[in-house]
Amino acid sequence: MIIDIKRPSFHIKHLSAISSDKWIKMAIENPIEILIDHAHCEKKAAGVAIQLMFRYPTEPNLSEVLSPIAREELEHFEKMLSFLKERGISLKALKPPPYGAELAKNIRKEEPLRMLDSFLIAGIIEARSHERLSILALNSKESATRDLYQSLVESEARHFGVYWKLAQSKFDKEETFKRLDQLVKKEEEILSSTFSMPRIHS
Amino acid sequence: MIIDIKRPSFHIKHLSAISSDKWIKMAIENPIEILIDHAHCEKKAAGVAIQLMFRYPTEPNLSEVLSPIAREELEHFEKMLSFLKERGISLKALKPPPYGAELAKNIRKEEPLRMLDSFLIAGIIEARSHERLSILALNSKESATRDLYQSLVESEARHFGVYWKLAQSKFDKEETFKRLDQLVKKEEEILSSTFSMPRIHS
Repeated sequence: MIIDIKRPSFHIKHLSAISSDKWIKMAIENPIEILIDHAHCEKKAAGVAIQLMFRYPTEPNLSEVLSPIAREELEHFEKMLSFLKERGISLKALKPPPYGAELAKNIRKEEPLRMLDSFLIAGIIEARSHERLSILALNSKESATRDLYQSLVESEARHFGVYWKLAQSKFDKEETFKRLDQLVKKEEEILSSTFSMPRIHS
Repeated sequence: MIIDIKRPSFHIKHLSAISSDKWIKMAIENPIEILIDHAHCEKKAAGVAIQLMFRYPTEPNLSEVLSPIAREELEHFEKMLSFLKERGISLKALKPPPYGAELAKNIRKEEPLRMLDSFLIAGIIEARSHERLSILALNSKESATRDLYQSLVESEARHFGVYWKLAQSKFDKEETFKRLDQLVKKEEEILSSTFSMPRIHS
């Protein structure tokens, strides 16, 4: 089957590679698995923000910006749950792609580098989600599914911005840019290695 | 100094002991430490709900009720942070009382008993928070602080209800009541052993 793939018009400023046609086709052909996986992703994103709030409980202006993010991710998680429920789909467990764990391996152990890397990787994941959700909002077969993804897209971009601003407010600008660049390349490598199942981050 | 202690008029249905005069006096005399501790408590309560969502990702009607609770706790956490910030108080780390960890020791290891105990203990902590916040809403010296606690009181009672309903929807009614009764007695024991610092759950 030939699928006419639409690409988002924005420039993916903070990622070094756009999603492959192969991923896009796999995602469009497996809408339910992708919906379920994205529900898990929203919950995981909330978990990441909350984990950072627990790891750095007294860090100035950290909880203040991460707590609203966690709330918004949970709201989206609930939105995904309702969308699935309306269609009679229950939230089954899915084998996760290696993406998150592989990215996390790049977090340096010693502070404050651990904090910097954690912010940047959380941001990169949001940036990638933004790109992928934009693609799903354009290419999903069902219009309700396109609308659902469209309603989530803008937050993912904003969340990248929050993590990026956190990094820049606490670390040297040049060092932060350099490290983002390194991690973005890692992200490209991780995504290019095959994971055969349809996932938001496969 | 003699403090005229006001007691909430409601009956503490799900707890076996009301707070001691000693605790009330200590809390009123240390408003800032109690405020900071309560900020941490709201975050911890969000963490408990999210932890359960990760532990039981596919359990029917669990995430649907716990995710909104987690969001509300985070909203309250942010409210506490703002209240502290307005007063120029930063969120310092506090030595936690043994309360949470001691209660958690009563969670049985094997499922589904682990789930039942987790719901009941989370509920008991909310019930105790409800009782203590009611006391603080009545007795705090500053009217802004009384109002703050009053604005949070009703949620704590509602959250107890959510955990209690979760337990009842998934477990045998008689077993659930019996276990609640046992855990409530444990809670009374834990609170009666002295922890000398002013905390919401000391």
